[in-house]
Amino acid sequence: MNFAVAHRALMQASSVLLVSHQNPDGDTLGSALAMAQFLIQQGKKCTHYCATPLAQSFAFLPGYQRVTMDRDRIAVQHYDVMIVFDAGDLTYAGVQKLLLLFTHKPYLINIDHHATNTLFGDLNLVDVSASSTAEIVYALLMSFKVTLTSDIATNLLMGIMTDTGHFSNLATTSRSLHIAAKLLNLGAHYKAIYVYLHAKSLQLLRLWGKILSRLQKNSEWNVVYTFLTHEDLEALEIEENEALKITNFLNIITNVRAVLFLYERSDGMIKGSFRTTHPLIDVAKIAKLLGGGGHTKAAGFLLPGKIQITDGSWQIV
Amino acid sequence: MNFAVAHRALMQASSVLLVSHQNPDGDTLGSALAMAQFLIQQGKKCTHYCATPLAQSFAFLPGYQRVTMDRDRIAVQHYDVMIVFDAGDLTYAGVQKLLLLFTHKPYLINIDHHATNTLFGDLNLVDVSASSTAEIVYALLMSFKVTLTSDIATNLLMGIMTDTGHFSNLATTSRSLHIAAKLLNLGAHYKAIYVYLHAKSLQLLRLWGKILSRLQKNSEWNVVYTFLTHEDLEALEIEENEALKITNFLNIITNVRAVLFLYERSDGMIKGSFRTTHPLIDVAKIAKLLGGGGHTKAAGFLLPGKIQITDGSWQIV
Repeated sequence: MNFAVAHRALMQASSVLLVSHQNPDGDTLGSALAMAQFLIQQGKKCTHYCATPLAQSFAFLPGYQRVTMDRDRIAVQHYDVMIVFDAGDLTYAGVQKLLLLFTHKPYLINIDHHATNTLFGDLNLVDVSASSTAEIVYALLMSFKVTLTSDIATNLLMGIMTDTGHFSNLATTSRSLHIAAKLLNLGAHYKAIYVYLHAKSLQLLRLWGKILSRLQKNSEWNVVYTFLTHEDLEALEIEENEALKITNFLNIITNVRAVLFLYERSDGMIKGSFRTTHPLIDVAKIAKLLGGGGHTKAAGFLLPGKIQITDGSWQIV
Repeated sequence: MNFAVAHRALMQASSVLLVSHQNPDGDTLGSALAMAQFLIQQGKKCTHYCATPLAQSFAFLPGYQRVTMDRDRIAVQHYDVMIVFDAGDLTYAGVQKLLLLFTHKPYLINIDHHATNTLFGDLNLVDVSASSTAEIVYALLMSFKVTLTSDIATNLLMGIMTDTGHFSNLATTSRSLHIAAKLLNLGAHYKAIYVYLHAKSLQLLRLWGKILSRLQKNSEWNVVYTFLTHEDLEALEIEENEALKITNFLNIITNVRAVLFLYERSDGMIKGSFRTTHPLIDVAKIAKLLGGGGHTKAAGFLLPGKIQITDGSWQIV
């Protein structure tokens, strides 16, 4: 990868705009925060922008409070270099319209690990074999021959641990573990990241309790299923996104072909999500029969309907 | 550590007895299985003994089927060297009485990482800074300058991932992550270990559902608590040990001082387990007030009583 070109561009720049994609996750934030800290160390003027607000739970990340959502202020500044982190295109990044406002177009560096990246940068540091964008930023900073501070290490480890699901999903490679070990050596704050990744509110665990208590099994298909109604969510004041994360958790059930999680939305539709770890099962095929689609091991569909609970049992009507 | 002495003893031996401690976990098994495979490679006669049966869920570990529980057969053999893995003393290992039966006392190597180790060996390879016994075995085999097979790598990674709680607890060090990365490079079967560590039966998740649905909060103390009755266990056919693991899972609840898990046993006693991640809370002190004890962050007690459930609420009587 053309790290030398990035180095030259950054060293010549006096002001740099860093962009984390909208609805930011730990990878886009950690990657940009790490780069911001490096650039500030180098005496550069550096702004970190994100189109949407950051969750309070990210507050432990060093540099968190420096991120701005103020597009109008950003639009009238001059930037020599702009780096977009972890976004397949500029729309997803949330800066398509912002770019049109610039009178001086900055040199655009695109750092990402998604296979769908549209290579929208003047320089594209895109490596689909990387576990995370943070892993590419790590390699980039290493090529600059700088010593990483513990704050930079924390931010990069956040990116790697987010995108590997705490070293649990298929993005977990030997390289990602090696880098994580080096970041720990540099003083990365492992425990804070662990707490961020695993912490759950009392309300959310009560909701999990409801969902898990409702687990049933279709013996003919050997498929396990459960459900959640919009009322359940509202009663416990949980956000939909947060609640639906249980789908992946359910995928650890042993000796079943697949799990199905049904979510009854307030608009009269039921969203179904299939997961499987079974080597021979293609849940995308089942989802397609129901008008949906997805991947072999994770797929979904949307059907009109409501879930009716009647003494200990339930049905879709 | 005196790895050279161990090397000499093993190279001079023609037959070696490897011992995994009773009620074996992934560390004592993985460590001994890795060593067995190395010794067999070196043309040694090698027996792997465990005083109690192995769970079927360990069957994916290479060499699993070679482990024997047949003490009588072991007792009449001649062994030049005996290695005990991951046991603080010979009673815990389950071989105190076995040793008395030997007519020829083998040279005893003790490999362990527990601070309570009694140094019972002729050679003690005890490193309390190691995440796991497997980490010490890794260092030992590295000192022999051999190339590890993917089967050996899988067994060692099993030990490390078991004792670090899949890189989640305080035993997780930079060194343990570095070794894990090297073992992945050697072809260790990460996914099988992941499934072993995280898989849960449908019945167990239904039980979790019950426990989580019952979560309550004492607002005065800011302590969250829930319970499980012996009847719950019996209804779902879950083993007590398996069910009680939820205590650590509950310890991820945000914004509380501590969690308390109450388990109503069949003998009229209630077992309480406190966990906290709060820096200022010492749950051992609370447990002591109730006649129990433990560590600052994990403590428990035992009280006579029964749990009574009455329309949606419950109390201890």
